[in-house]
Amino acid sequence: MADAPLFERLCLIGSGLIGGSIARAAREKGGIARRVVAQSRRPETLARVRELGFADEVEADPARAVEGADCVILCVPVGAYAGVMERIAPRLSPGCVLSDAGSTKGSVLRDLQPLLPEGVHLVPAHPMAGTEHSGPDAGFATLFEGRYCILTPPEGTDPAAVERIAELWRRCGSSVEFMDAATHDKVVAIVSHLPHLIAFTICGTADDLAEETREAVLKFAASGFRDFTRIAASDVDMWRDIFLNNREALLEMLARFTEDAQALARAVRWGEAGFIEDRIRRGRRIRRGLIERKQA
Amino acid sequence: MADAPLFERLCLIGSGLIGGSIARAAREKGGIARRVVAQSRRPETLARVRELGFADEVEADPARAVEGADCVILCVPVGAYAGVMERIAPRLSPGCVLSDAGSTKGSVLRDLQPLLPEGVHLVPAHPMAGTEHSGPDAGFATLFEGRYCILTPPEGTDPAAVERIAELWRRCGSSVEFMDAATHDKVVAIVSHLPHLIAFTICGTADDLAEETREAVLKFAASGFRDFTRIAASDVDMWRDIFLNNREALLEMLARFTEDAQALARAVRWGEAGFIEDRIRRGRRIRRGLIERKQA
Repeated sequence: MADAPLFERLCLIGSGLIGGSIARAAREKGGIARRVVAQSRRPETLARVRELGFADEVEADPARAVEGADCVILCVPVGAYAGVMERIAPRLSPGCVLSDAGSTKGSVLRDLQPLLPEGVHLVPAHPMAGTEHSGPDAGFATLFEGRYCILTPPEGTDPAAVERIAELWRRCGSSVEFMDAATHDKVVAIVSHLPHLIAFTICGTADDLAEETREAVLKFAASGFRDFTRIAASDVDMWRDIFLNNREALLEMLARFTEDAQALARAVRWGEAGFIEDRIRRGRRIRRGLIERKQA
Repeated sequence: MADAPLFERLCLIGSGLIGGSIARAAREKGGIARRVVAQSRRPETLARVRELGFADEVEADPARAVEGADCVILCVPVGAYAGVMERIAPRLSPGCVLSDAGSTKGSVLRDLQPLLPEGVHLVPAHPMAGTEHSGPDAGFATLFEGRYCILTPPEGTDPAAVERIAELWRRCGSSVEFMDAATHDKVVAIVSHLPHLIAFTICGTADDLAEETREAVLKFAASGFRDFTRIAASDVDMWRDIFLNNREALLEMLARFTEDAQALARAVRWGEAGFIEDRIRRGRRIRRGLIERKQA
């Protein structure tokens, strides 16, 4: 890349799938950062990051990691943000852009804004990319290519800071979109968090069945159940934190879904064929909408 | 194939995805039937079956179609079985094996057994294969290859008749398994019918969201929601009939699932991290079980 890099010193708090992928993208694509600092509190992860060599510096202490950085991106489960912010806030450099890669955005404002030092710009981001794997080995430079990245800067955020984070994600290959945090949290509650809650739940429901039936379930899992378990193979800490940090929107969507499921169940019980057909047709219509947008 | 065909005259009631695929398999693989009769009550479908040429004879009237057949397989939505049986029962040849390809098996006994003529053998079957497409064009000879086919012959069924149907499915490339109808219905309720009910429902829940959010849902549908809509793109008549004909098992599994989802929701509301982690871990465990069985 001929461009000067967007940042001189990019600090990634957390070196798992997301942090490791941003670091690799910065190295392989260029134009993102002159130096990359990868932080992890776990010694094994740090050692592995050193071996993999995708960062210029590795650091255990988040407070030391952020020193002198003009961009800091939190790449840890969202439940860890408040604790990390307490450690790093006093060491953030003036003019630094503080961003993140978490799946909930209201919680980011709640946890980061109160401690945000004067002159540090907060630009929360949610790259809509991931795999079912985690840890520093799971990352790769092309993870974000062709995926959306949603930015939810609070009103009044310095436009130049917002643009630098937007450009970072464009250089990672993503399409950048803007949304307010509340809308973001509602949208991801229905497209991602509720499906995961359902997938985790139905796996447990199956696991509770009598021994003989459970064996048959595992044997005959048809495509329906397989798609659910694909979702269910996700990182425990990340999803626990997502559920806890998008509580309101998730419970609201689950309540709506449960009402709708009960209405369909009632139609099944009472043999209301027309109602059932209507629900199936609506599913197909949404499906068509997704295909037209080439998302399916 | 050097073997003599299993049947002289195989009659398929219904010429959609499943009937069309059995006919094609019989033609391409050999050893299954000397002649194939494909029935459909819809003139467009009959005309198309003639054009596609996958059957030796096509016939609109089910009663005429089954005449002289030594094997009849119902390949229509399970809700149509009772009506079809009324029409065909008086014309079934002595010694004929009557089978089907429906996704519910208790309902098959309920709808077919009372009208079963003396000397006709009932061997219900459920080939666990399908696509999201339907109609005579959707079928293909390899649809059943590598898939399970579950047979649920009632106690006392002629073992020779059971073996001929089992061999038909083996020659279509399937692995044949045996189960009683009640167990079958419970297993498919959790691995297939409940996931479909959930998928249809969540699509409707999303469709009910306010205009702005719905647009964003379609735009940002992450893998979670995509997997759900893949399931939801299924045939309306078939799924209506499945829900109505596996009512007890489906409502039982939905009730269990709903209890489990509410327990998880409660943990989210009250911040019970340990409970949430446990549910996520169980999902991963089931997932691993599936992978070990090479079903995922």
